[in-house]
Amino acid sequence: KTIAVLPGDGIGPEVTRAAVKVLQTIAMRYGHTFHLKHAAIGGEAVDNYGNPLPQETLEVCDASDAILLGAVGGSKWDQQPSHLRPEKGLLNIRKHFDLFANIRPVKAIPSLLSSSPLKEDVARDVDMVIVRELTSGLYFGEPKRRSDKSAVDTLVYTREEIERVVNQAFEIARTRRGKVTSIDKANVLETSKLWREVVEERKQAYPDIEVEHMLVDSAAMKLITNPRTFDVIVTENMFGDILSDEASVITGSLGMLPSASIRSDGFGMYEPVHGSAPDIAGHNKANPCGAILSAAMMLKHSFGLHSEAMAIEEAVLSVLNDGYCTGDLSAGGKRVVPTETFVTKVIEELE
Amino acid sequence: KTIAVLPGDGIGPEVTRAAVKVLQTIAMRYGHTFHLKHAAIGGEAVDNYGNPLPQETLEVCDASDAILLGAVGGSKWDQQPSHLRPEKGLLNIRKHFDLFANIRPVKAIPSLLSSSPLKEDVARDVDMVIVRELTSGLYFGEPKRRSDKSAVDTLVYTREEIERVVNQAFEIARTRRGKVTSIDKANVLETSKLWREVVEERKQAYPDIEVEHMLVDSAAMKLITNPRTFDVIVTENMFGDILSDEASVITGSLGMLPSASIRSDGFGMYEPVHGSAPDIAGHNKANPCGAILSAAMMLKHSFGLHSEAMAIEEAVLSVLNDGYCTGDLSAGGKRVVPTETFVTKVIEELE
Ligand SMILES: CC(C)[C@H](C(=O)O)[C@@H](O)C(=O)O
Ligand SMILES: CC(C)[C@H](C(=O)O)[C@@H](O)C(=O)O
Repeated sequence: KTIAVLPGDGIGPEVTRAAVKVLQTIAMRYGHTFHLKHAAIGGEAVDNYGNPLPQETLEVCDASDAILLGAVGGSKWDQQPSHLRPEKGLLNIRKHFDLFANIRPVKAIPSLLSSSPLKEDVARDVDMVIVRELTSGLYFGEPKRRSDKSAVDTLVYTREEIERVVNQAFEIARTRRGKVTSIDKANVLETSKLWREVVEERKQAYPDIEVEHMLVDSAAMKLITNPRTFDVIVTENMFGDILSDEASVITGSLGMLPSASIRSDGFGMYEPVHGSAPDIAGHNKANPCGAILSAAMMLKHSFGLHSEAMAIEEAVLSVLNDGYCTGDLSAGGKRVVPTETFVTKVIEELE
Repeated sequence: KTIAVLPGDGIGPEVTRAAVKVLQTIAMRYGHTFHLKHAAIGGEAVDNYGNPLPQETLEVCDASDAILLGAVGGSKWDQQPSHLRPEKGLLNIRKHFDLFANIRPVKAIPSLLSSSPLKEDVARDVDMVIVRELTSGLYFGEPKRRSDKSAVDTLVYTREEIERVVNQAFEIARTRRGKVTSIDKANVLETSKLWREVVEERKQAYPDIEVEHMLVDSAAMKLITNPRTFDVIVTENMFGDILSDEASVITGSLGMLPSASIRSDGFGMYEPVHGSAPDIAGHNKANPCGAILSAAMMLKHSFGLHSEAMAIEEAVLSVLNDGYCTGDLSAGGKRVVPTETFVTKVIEELE
């Protein structure tokens, strides 16, 4: 298998390095061969190629079976015009490879609940997966333009765009507790009415799945007051951006969270949920778990290597349970270690 | 002063009745005359007039100096076509009276922190005001239509629409800690770029105010992890809908929160943040504080009656501090009383 490795900016390179080490350990232990090809994206690519997603990078990804991404962005590039901003690389790669479903599991880890901003009895046992539509909606709809006097963005969805991401959510729910919460704003938006209609249609094909519709404002409350109520959430691009970030902090372990952005044929891009955190970049302090667990998601989703993925997840949990963590999780009498020490311990577990 | 009273659906009538009693007590004690004119809105109006915002109601409001609203909506009307749904009455009245700024204070009440889903040291001392643009953006932009195959909504803002709500936020910040956080998605949306530009321009006129820009996804996290960081938030309609509901639960006292929807000349509509809660309607259980404190906001914003408003706020706090509350706030050894008992105690305080 060939993996395109795009470290990106800020702490991207150091957490990606951690994930790569873990993948190499897995390859050795289980007798796989992973060809790793590095390429540039984001701010680094703007600096070196004048393009946040250079042609060279697209070619490397095209010739790969999956993409492992670190993080992009940083205030250094904040004043650039849109087409030279790091985020544009991310938006373009999603669109180029048609990565229409962004999948983010959020699971409470008992030993980390003391870092949660929520009361422990609210955050305990949270276990949900958010499926966000990633290649349409307000992000890409046309017209999208501005003059000095006004500006316009367009929220547009086709039935097919909704169907495929909703199917994805139903499939995931089948492997879990069997409940899908579809989030929209059907009391105001036409796109949400279509969304709701498609969910109602698709659920006919999944009689085993319980379906619930929820308004986005109400969901923003429920994620805090009663997060255990959710199993699989499915929603459109902009709502998904907001709600998945909201959900990412409720268990107190943002730095732990992985994500996958996939299309139907198994190809996908895997990246930690956290950002590039330029303030701590290069200090050997970043939490490598988000990246490591993203590599595990890659093994599972893109390569079908389930036991290997599970081995990684167990190794990470076991190091955490031994009381080690990085600085972001210091609450509750844990032993804070540098990134590299944490990674070494994970690798020892795996060996 | 003439006040249009629109009780609406669910618990709307009982909480509005509470607010009206309080206003009558204030009128007596301070020697004011309030003319109260009742009219229908929402589901009740759909049932009785076939229109969620009947002409009669518009005429009553037109002839008033302010509007006091209870709540609208209920599953009873969920299957109706859009123009016969209770929410449509709300959207139409906002647009009809050009109520462009929705103002929602969120303030932690020490004795209620035990009801918060957040850890008490996270929620303690939270004190913010959210200013949401209320008459433009995705809610009203054209084209807005759907076919069987696709649907479209339009997010459009003019410079003037942004300016007036941003000015409002700056003015409010002047009366508080002097900080404005403007929330947008300027890394993706053209409307957000214009929004950010207008905020940068307008801040020239308010050199005393500290201005911060924040992306909406990041704000959804910060509201939970560090809500004390906010003083005044200003944002567009859809983001404001989501973030203000998210913010409304962090202090554990959704039932306490008031709101104002105003235009520049002082005319405004005042309503509790909570919904119509049909499940508890008529049971004498609803928390009347949101409605009562909305009446206080009306006295302050629309009528300039500051000491009267403060008297109401103090009376409510004092009853809470005596240990009384309604069922929604029962955590932490409080004495749960029926709505009417709570109101009587507030009125005794005022007398
Ligand atoms: C960087 C930005 C364009 C991106 C998004 O809004 O999709 C990010 O917030 C994310 O969620 O991956
Ligand atoms: C009922 C609905 C249309 C409304 C809105 O989205 O504005 C409500 O959620 C609110 O925030 O007042």
